[in-house]
Amino acid sequence: MRTATANLHNPINNNQSNTFFKALIAHAQASGFIYPSSEIYDGLQAVYDYGPYGVALKRNVQNFWWQSMTQLNQNIVGIDTAIMMHPTTWQASGHIDGFTDPMVDNRDSQKRYRVDLLLEAHAAQLVEQKKGTQAKALIAEMESCLQTANLSGLDQLLQSFAIVCPLSKTANWTPVRQFNLMFSTQVGAQNDATTIYLRPETAQGIFVNFLNVQKTVRMKIPFGIAQIGKAFRNEIIARQFTFRMREFEQMEMQFFIQPGTEKEWFDYWKENRQAWYNTLGISNEKINIHPHKQLAHYAAAAVDIEYAFPFGFKEVEGIHSRTDFDLSNHEQYAKKKLQYFDPEWKKSYTPYVIETSAGLDRLVLMLLSNAFIQEKEGKEGHKARTYLKLPFPLAPVKAAIFPLVKKDGLEAKALELFDQLKYDFPLMYEATSSIGKRYARQDLIGTPYCITVDHQTLEDATVTIRERDDMVQNRMAIADIVNFLHSTTSIKSLLLQLRK
Amino acid sequence: MRTATANLHNPINNNQSNTFFKALIAHAQASGFIYPSSEIYDGLQAVYDYGPYGVALKRNVQNFWWQSMTQLNQNIVGIDTAIMMHPTTWQASGHIDGFTDPMVDNRDSQKRYRVDLLLEAHAAQLVEQKKGTQAKALIAEMESCLQTANLSGLDQLLQSFAIVCPLSKTANWTPVRQFNLMFSTQVGAQNDATTIYLRPETAQGIFVNFLNVQKTVRMKIPFGIAQIGKAFRNEIIARQFTFRMREFEQMEMQFFIQPGTEKEWFDYWKENRQAWYNTLGISNEKINIHPHKQLAHYAAAAVDIEYAFPFGFKEVEGIHSRTDFDLSNHEQYAKKKLQYFDPEWKKSYTPYVIETSAGLDRLVLMLLSNAFIQEKEGKEGHKARTYLKLPFPLAPVKAAIFPLVKKDGLEAKALELFDQLKYDFPLMYEATSSIGKRYARQDLIGTPYCITVDHQTLEDATVTIRERDDMVQNRMAIADIVNFLHSTTSIKSLLLQLRK
Repeated sequence: MRTATANLHNPINNNQSNTFFKALIAHAQASGFIYPSSEIYDGLQAVYDYGPYGVALKRNVQNFWWQSMTQLNQNIVGIDTAIMMHPTTWQASGHIDGFTDPMVDNRDSQKRYRVDLLLEAHAAQLVEQKKGTQAKALIAEMESCLQTANLSGLDQLLQSFAIVCPLSKTANWTPVRQFNLMFSTQVGAQNDATTIYLRPETAQGIFVNFLNVQKTVRMKIPFGIAQIGKAFRNEIIARQFTFRMREFEQMEMQFFIQPGTEKEWFDYWKENRQAWYNTLGISNEKINIHPHKQLAHYAAAAVDIEYAFPFGFKEVEGIHSRTDFDLSNHEQYAKKKLQYFDPEWKKSYTPYVIETSAGLDRLVLMLLSNAFIQEKEGKEGHKARTYLKLPFPLAPVKAAIFPLVKKDGLEAKALELFDQLKYDFPLMYEATSSIGKRYARQDLIGTPYCITVDHQTLEDATVTIRERDDMVQNRMAIADIVNFLHSTTSIKSLLLQLRK
Repeated sequence: MRTATANLHNPINNNQSNTFFKALIAHAQASGFIYPSSEIYDGLQAVYDYGPYGVALKRNVQNFWWQSMTQLNQNIVGIDTAIMMHPTTWQASGHIDGFTDPMVDNRDSQKRYRVDLLLEAHAAQLVEQKKGTQAKALIAEMESCLQTANLSGLDQLLQSFAIVCPLSKTANWTPVRQFNLMFSTQVGAQNDATTIYLRPETAQGIFVNFLNVQKTVRMKIPFGIAQIGKAFRNEIIARQFTFRMREFEQMEMQFFIQPGTEKEWFDYWKENRQAWYNTLGISNEKINIHPHKQLAHYAAAAVDIEYAFPFGFKEVEGIHSRTDFDLSNHEQYAKKKLQYFDPEWKKSYTPYVIETSAGLDRLVLMLLSNAFIQEKEGKEGHKARTYLKLPFPLAPVKAAIFPLVKKDGLEAKALELFDQLKYDFPLMYEATSSIGKRYARQDLIGTPYCITVDHQTLEDATVTIRERDDMVQNRMAIADIVNFLHSTTSIKSLLLQLRK
């Protein structure tokens, strides 16, 4: 059973943040970041598509993560393993037996619920009613039931806390049952097909390739293998926009170490990853480090990095001390040794593992939540405006190029500038409507700079460059633009912030 | 039924190229480019994993394609749609009814075959036996049967050409049957689950989002939408390493145009895409432009760009004039208009589409095939060596940094250089074994430059820089390295080659 990591200190589940979140979702769709999947067919629940600015933002986050892992660290290399894996993988990992959620049906409403989420919602109500002690007791008992896969214990909790279906308002529940979250499919021709699974996590692709990578790239422990890729979970209760999706993208790094050094490396990666979030412009007040008290079957220690979403502090990344749990299980099922000969220790062993596991879609949602600003009129005499205060290097478009007017050769000059800069940066070109409206449109997608070609440009080869956040306009020589944009909007400029 | 694009002029299906291809596959695995998937469980047929250098090469190709589409063209934007789509999508696209292969079982060997591949192999034999006319007749009849889904016609071809099973050597065949290539799975809880499909192509994700993109990003026709992503086909006959996989990655761009302009834009993209292959270092002799005579149901015109693989000229990219086939079908199934109001024509219409559809895995295999060089002893007095002559900007590692020896402060100096350059480039650091061996190892993965820190470095801040292809060593000031590597190994340097 998946282990719950219930969190009672979710601070901001109120009307104001609901309104904010609705506005954010509307903005994400209207501005070309995120659309419901297959929308013309009324969508597919808990699946979303990324529009032009969404995919650009996502690729920037992905590239930053990838480079910060594989390029800055001599001893971390990348991998890209298939979504389809040999089915025994999921026996060894424990997913076939254990990757389940406890579900219950209400006989009156015919609706199905995840029991842990029902209980968590009830605990949150108790907290609001100042019954914190009861709430804590409920969560503690629930976590113990989940930990031991005690289904009848969950039945009893539903009864003893008199929990009712939000729709039918009755407590007419079926017994709690297990529901496996992996999607299965058939590979091969019909008469000799094999059942396989869509991977529910990318980590196992790294574990089964541990020896391949170690030997062919001649890695020495400690070393890491990083991977970005899709994973799939048949979530029954899909909520909170792109936060919990059935198809999602993970950025995972497994770091292989000498047994006995796990505490030191766990602390190292906890700190390292927290610092990475700071470079994304996430301040420490908006981050919570949540240690797991109840540990998953594979973990010796675990923390979640949580972000203050509009719907509360929620996990964006987990850091887990996995011991040799995975490699040992694969050794057993594959009947092959997955060992490393340590030249320092002069002996072979199955390495221990520290994992950092981030949700790429959650990071994108975090960045959008963090950046979405609806400014009222009056602030420093400015008009009301909505803008995305994304870190410049993550913005989908680095600069928009405008001719002040289309005539007088300004359009040709602006297009010439576009053609000169496009080999270095993703740009936009806009020639219609007033400059003010063009600024406003770029603000909505978080473009750091708007560059206007005007009559003076033809004389002295300078342009107006307007910055998104302070809205100040300066003149800059065309010859200086490339270096200026590189120094403020490149992924490299983010990587440099990671220097100790 | 999928339409065959049989190609009788495959030039190099002989022992020499078989030996070369086997050596290439062995090299790809031994050097950390491509591993069989889930290898510790003896693999999953027709699925592969990319190792550290494979994923780096793949990401470079992908970034180059992405930037050349979305960054160089003002009117092309990106998208990233989900693998899981509403199932009606595949009714509208014709995949549920038509995305099938004709299969036949041999009753003696119990083996199943794709009929078109059996017939193609027979035609190739006929060509070798100088019976080209018979071969042509066979292929023409086969294509006509495939086009009209004439299964009994295929039965008759098997009989009349006396085709036998390569294993049992008998012609004891079952009737030919249709086999759908889409993988299906169940989404939702067991009692109210829906059957959905893993997308067999990325294109439909673009079509169903046509209006979302056009409206939210305010695109004007002609404009394109580009996407990179996984697709899945339950191939029964998997062959030729990563050439035909069950899970693979596509790079597709759909270009929306005014009806009537399709010929002009088809020619434009045909030329544009061919030029792109030249910048990958693929000479025109190794490319074949193969026009389809028998067209797929959606196409008004189609060509394949084929590369001279060791196993013959085979498709790496298709360019298709799709008319309004897809958008119109979606309009019908979704009961929604997918039209564009053209300010020039002052009326609304369903746009026509030109598609460019490349296989990312095939491009990687093409680049490896093109780059893999086994040089014998003696050439210009050099020793035998094996190296990968990849275009510098696509190489997994841009430069390797070596201290000549570990002592005398050279290691510290080399690590300092590594730390200075790592924010700009993916590098390797190696300090063990002779410089010659270190060069040889970098050659195997195609690293353009090896930079050696020696005693002179401590005096005058210069290093030795050795180039992969000509193996010439020069001295260079450390201060010049960043600019030098950027000018020769960056994706930007490839993009600049696309300038007209």
